[in-house]
Amino acid sequence: MIVRPRLHWFRMLLVWRGSVLGRILPQLLTMTGVALVVVVVHKQHPTLLPDLTPIPFTLLGIALAIFLGFRNSVSYDRFWEARRLWGAVLNDTRSLARQVVTLTDADADSQRTFVHGLIAFAHALKAQLRGADATPALRGLLPDDVRADVARARFKPALLLRRSGDQLLALRRRGQLEPVLHAAMDRHLGSLTDSLGGCERIASTPIPFAYSVLLHRTAYLYSFMLPLGLVATVGAATPVVVALASYTFFALEALAEELQDPFGIEPNDLPLDSITWMIEATLRETIGEPVLSDEPVAVQHVLR
Amino acid sequence: MIVRPRLHWFRMLLVWRGSVLGRILPQLLTMTGVALVVVVVHKQHPTLLPDLTPIPFTLLGIALAIFLGFRNSVSYDRFWEARRLWGAVLNDTRSLARQVVTLTDADADSQRTFVHGLIAFAHALKAQLRGADATPALRGLLPDDVRADVARARFKPALLLRRSGDQLLALRRRGQLEPVLHAAMDRHLGSLTDSLGGCERIASTPIPFAYSVLLHRTAYLYSFMLPLGLVATVGAATPVVVALASYTFFALEALAEELQDPFGIEPNDLPLDSITWMIEATLRETIGEPVLSDEPVAVQHVLR
Amino acid sequence: MIVRPRLHWFRMLLVWRGSVLGRILPQLLTMTGVALVVVVVHKQHPTLLPDLTPIPFTLLGIALAIFLGFRNSVSYDRFWEARRLWGAVLNDTRSLARQVVTLTDADADSQRTFVHGLIAFAHALKAQLRGADATPALRGLLPDDVRADVARARFKPALLLRRSGDQLLALRRRGQLEPVLHAAMDRHLGSLTDSLGGCERIASTPIPFAYSVLLHRTAYLYSFMLPLGLVATVGAATPVVVALASYTFFALEALAEELQDPFGIEPNDLPLDSITWMIEATLRETIGEPVLSDEPVAVQHVLR
Amino acid sequence: MIVRPRLHWFRMLLVWRGSVLGRILPQLLTMTGVALVVVVVHKQHPTLLPDLTPIPFTLLGIALAIFLGFRNSVSYDRFWEARRLWGAVLNDTRSLARQVVTLTDADADSQRTFVHGLIAFAHALKAQLRGADATPALRGLLPDDVRADVARARFKPALLLRRSGDQLLALRRRGQLEPVLHAAMDRHLGSLTDSLGGCERIASTPIPFAYSVLLHRTAYLYSFMLPLGLVATVGAATPVVVALASYTFFALEALAEELQDPFGIEPNDLPLDSITWMIEATLRETIGEPVLSDEPVAVQHVLR
Amino acid sequence: MIVRPRLHWFRMLLVWRGSVLGRILPQLLTMTGVALVVVVVHKQHPTLLPDLTPIPFTLLGIALAIFLGFRNSVSYDRFWEARRLWGAVLNDTRSLARQVVTLTDADADSQRTFVHGLIAFAHALKAQLRGADATPALRGLLPDDVRADVARARFKPALLLRRSGDQLLALRRRGQLEPVLHAAMDRHLGSLTDSLGGCERIASTPIPFAYSVLLHRTAYLYSFMLPLGLVATVGAATPVVVALASYTFFALEALAEELQDPFGIEPNDLPLDSITWMIEATLRETIGEPVLSDEPVAVQHVLR
Repeated sequence: MIVRPRLHWFRMLLVWRGSVLGRILPQLLTMTGVALVVVVVHKQHPTLLPDLTPIPFTLLGIALAIFLGFRNSVSYDRFWEARRLWGAVLNDTRSLARQVVTLTDADADSQRTFVHGLIAFAHALKAQLRGADATPALRGLLPDDVRADVARARFKPALLLRRSGDQLLALRRRGQLEPVLHAAMDRHLGSLTDSLGGCERIASTPIPFAYSVLLHRTAYLYSFMLPLGLVATVGAATPVVVALASYTFFALEALAEELQDPFGIEPNDLPLDSITWMIEATLRETIGEPVLSDEPVAVQHVLR
Repeated sequence: MIVRPRLHWFRMLLVWRGSVLGRILPQLLTMTGVALVVVVVHKQHPTLLPDLTPIPFTLLGIALAIFLGFRNSVSYDRFWEARRLWGAVLNDTRSLARQVVTLTDADADSQRTFVHGLIAFAHALKAQLRGADATPALRGLLPDDVRADVARARFKPALLLRRSGDQLLALRRRGQLEPVLHAAMDRHLGSLTDSLGGCERIASTPIPFAYSVLLHRTAYLYSFMLPLGLVATVGAATPVVVALASYTFFALEALAEELQDPFGIEPNDLPLDSITWMIEATLRETIGEPVLSDEPVAVQHVLR
Repeated sequence: MIVRPRLHWFRMLLVWRGSVLGRILPQLLTMTGVALVVVVVHKQHPTLLPDLTPIPFTLLGIALAIFLGFRNSVSYDRFWEARRLWGAVLNDTRSLARQVVTLTDADADSQRTFVHGLIAFAHALKAQLRGADATPALRGLLPDDVRADVARARFKPALLLRRSGDQLLALRRRGQLEPVLHAAMDRHLGSLTDSLGGCERIASTPIPFAYSVLLHRTAYLYSFMLPLGLVATVGAATPVVVALASYTFFALEALAEELQDPFGIEPNDLPLDSITWMIEATLRETIGEPVLSDEPVAVQHVLR
Repeated sequence: MIVRPRLHWFRMLLVWRGSVLGRILPQLLTMTGVALVVVVVHKQHPTLLPDLTPIPFTLLGIALAIFLGFRNSVSYDRFWEARRLWGAVLNDTRSLARQVVTLTDADADSQRTFVHGLIAFAHALKAQLRGADATPALRGLLPDDVRADVARARFKPALLLRRSGDQLLALRRRGQLEPVLHAAMDRHLGSLTDSLGGCERIASTPIPFAYSVLLHRTAYLYSFMLPLGLVATVGAATPVVVALASYTFFALEALAEELQDPFGIEPNDLPLDSITWMIEATLRETIGEPVLSDEPVAVQHVLR
Repeated sequence: MIVRPRLHWFRMLLVWRGSVLGRILPQLLTMTGVALVVVVVHKQHPTLLPDLTPIPFTLLGIALAIFLGFRNSVSYDRFWEARRLWGAVLNDTRSLARQVVTLTDADADSQRTFVHGLIAFAHALKAQLRGADATPALRGLLPDDVRADVARARFKPALLLRRSGDQLLALRRRGQLEPVLHAAMDRHLGSLTDSLGGCERIASTPIPFAYSVLLHRTAYLYSFMLPLGLVATVGAATPVVVALASYTFFALEALAEELQDPFGIEPNDLPLDSITWMIEATLRETIGEPVLSDEPVAVQHVLR
């Protein structure tokens, strides 16, 4: 179980890592710099720059906030759906492990091979989603010839599910699995297929490009022009206000950008290493095997 | 796996293709032109035009933003539901392919025919949704007489699902498929029927017409009248503000319009070519066939 | 497939039918009339009327917009859920038609009777939801004695589903339907029961009355008092602003009112005629029967 | 089918019953009284009271509206989920009634006993949720000894479901119900268990207390202080504005309070009498029994 | 059934416990203190502090409210999903208890052992989620050797579900459970596995850290700077306004923080003690055992 301690309200203001501040610093400095220039120019030549007044920013600010809120919800929904899908992988593999022990008459060896195949599926799925090489993690879980097949395949996790299906077929042919219980187990393989397809869907279908462009553009044009609207009334404090507004908008956009691809290895992405570790540990425990590695721990609030 | 590279924040401000800017340029220019005329007239005859003051636009702007936000959510939900339905097509066809191999005693030939029928279903569904001719894509997947039947049918994908059902019936009659496993496979045919009906539902039921009219009208009247509210305070910079506000509202509306019919071939529609390619590739791999074509690639951030 | 052409942005401003403008015209004229009176009185006796200033309307406007947005979402969700339920009717009847052909050993005559019963269910459901007489549509689909039973029943579609169940029972008793496949088909009858109950739920449970009253009252008091808040600053243009604001609020409320009862025959209600036509057509095609009538077409963007 | 007539827009402004106005009148009068006092004091001693200016209320008003909107959505979701659960009770009891007739070989007497047990379940569930005594409604539906058992039980509806399970077991033991069809019927008993648990969940888990406190407090402090912000600009019309704003906030809060416990007998709660009547009527019709009582009718827009 | 009495509107303003006010008092006092200092300094040296004017706070306030609203929805969704999962535990254990009695031929002893295992699962799940020791609660429910196994296991509830599966396997091997009914019961074990995994998912995956940081920071910087924006117009009443605004923002944030980890023992967390009590009571009643303990009662509106 991974628990995050609650920080003191004041310390939380100073957190750096995991807060996307690093990624938006260049833009923030640019905007604040623009505001500084506007303040200086306005002091020297008060009539040189047009006074946009705060009105346009009131009108647009609400729209911008609502749109950013929408974008943000969509990104978070993608993140959370991805988490649910991985939760479903845990649930279905656990159910299959329970089933192979309690619904079939398979011997201990077949049980172990079957459960190892499920663990291999989780590792292969993680590798596919992160664009990594699955082969190292599969060593010890699959026989060498199967590993070679998997390495050649384009859709590795799908192949592993088909292979689990083959094992059930063999059990039924040997009379160790009733047809109706075969159907019950196959339903969980179908559910794993759904989770696999769900992850692929999120990974392969980004938020429509025009959204990103539209909101990005509105947020940045807004921030660029904001000093012209504030300098006449707020004066020398303009850069501070611009910095705070830009921070809010840019950070939220950056975070939405990060969350919309939840399978990466950025600080706010899903901790897939940790989740696959847990899947492996609980499956091994179900068939009485020891857990081989330690649970991953968070480094500076960030878990991979 | 289709991945979109993240653009630098500055380059993103200049993107053209896929950003709906092209489609709304005429309206944007009209609105900016109106604002220019207002500025000129106001300079010459300050009392000729009524001064609406910014107040009405504050009042209406919030309502407009909330309604556009609603419209936008609805359109996006349609887009994403359509994507989920196609994801379900992938999942169910994959499950059926796994099942025909691991639940039945069908010979390799029957397995291939069955899986080709599923691939044909995906192509026929895409063609129906895009109003295109399905026949070319079905060549090589279906025998000639079946192709002729399909060509005559009004509801082609439904016919193909019934035909898959016929094949399962034949297997059961030959004793190669247990009744309870037949039921398990038929459940996935039922699920494909649901996905088919879901796509047809989205394609045939647009967002209530009055919404489009109401929001369109509010957004355009707002933009038409905006110069009269701003010119007294913002002065010569009015056209810039009007352009930015109009851009935000019109672009969001245009994007919502584009997303609400997600099966088209506009830049932000679903990449059905790419999805059907993937379905075909993974199904063929399941039964050990080579993939015949290359994966479609994105052209300027846009995938069809 | 029913597709709505996209209108030119300028033509869309002038659309009349299907835009609820007709229904709210009396209120709109009343509000604009009130505003006109306020303008005239204010010109004659500037101190007679209290100056509410725009502030209260800023405070309340946001709340009003948010509540209208909520009301609107709820209404739209009812509309869309109703559409999904009818989509499920299509899906489940299609699946049952496929099943009666591919899961049972029924002869062609029994297949036709069964499928006609499903078509009759769709017609009876539509008639019940619209408070119409189902009997004419059932001619040719049901034997005369069954038609008489149905005419007497209080819950006609439920009776038809029970009758479909009777037919399956007969098939099983004749040994033409395996128990496990019987269960599989019965599941779709259960799903049709769910869709039926879902439609009845939407039809019989309106949005809580207090919502309609509360939002209606707020919207109308707001519009009544708005002229007193604007006349001192906006002057003679007050009626234009009041008209636009009232239009936005009233039209959205009227549309929400229309959508919340999606089974009626108002322009933005569900096109049940069209949907039942499609159900009938695709079911008949599944068993090789010709489609008897033409597909309904939209008249002025409106489909019934 | 319960249909609510649409009221004329003007008559709707004057509706009293079902509009929660009665419940919030004391608070409304208090707030308006405070505003009156502020107006009088301000007239006599213009500098005695602090001038808060409208600014704080603009800042807080938006937050307040958004939070009330959230609270409101949550309450409505509870209301609608409760309605869906009762809809599911209708659907599952209907399906079970259809199944006992068409899946089993039970004689007419066993069918009737089984269906009466389902009707008793609906009555017992309503009684439990409203904290009422279920025994009267169960007379005529259950044998006397069963009624006594039920009266003693703490979880009456759960006991009735177990008893329905007993009846199915008896049918199977007598060879009148195939195991696979038993499983199909048991699934609907499981679904009724889910609906029962869902209703108990809503009834036993209110919205977190701190929400109610937080929003209540913000809304009331806001309204208390509002006169101090308005009196300097709006003057003598302050009480009118305060009354309208308070009405909007308090009414929405009161309505949310009412909807969050949807099983009560307040005007906007679920019409459980009407729903159970319908369940009883349709179940009796399924087995050919007459409906014993008349459909409940709405009194002044309110149905119990 | 746990019911919360409705408080009088005035008493509700004074509630302390359960209102998160205690947790945010230090921050509130800090902010009010800052505002007091600003008022004093501004009185003495009117030009020393920059006048930020209220404009930046209008711009940012809306964004802040929308983001807090989002954060809040997400937290509440977690809370409610956790509640649903525990509701599902109740439903599935109840269904399994009904099934072991009505689907199997198990003797009373086996029935009791099986049901006790389900009760033990609920206790073990609660203990795991609260990081507590499950062993005491399991005494009397499990034989000593099983208790020892459970104590050693890392994933205790998963182990208990596997053990329930073992019991069903034994029943089937003894011919007391048909395969198809075994599958039906195993489906509920699968569903319990899903609920277990769902709780673990919520417990182990907090809301992305960057959200908490971003919103926290914005809310606190906003409140810190607010006095500088108000003091010039609101004057001596500034601390009151700052206190109210800070209260709204901080309380909502604190509540969101509390709700996002719904398995704890803070006042607004889920009353797991009460829920597990109910599960135990209803399961015991199903097999005719007395309920051993009293129902937990709420202490000052708070139930654990």
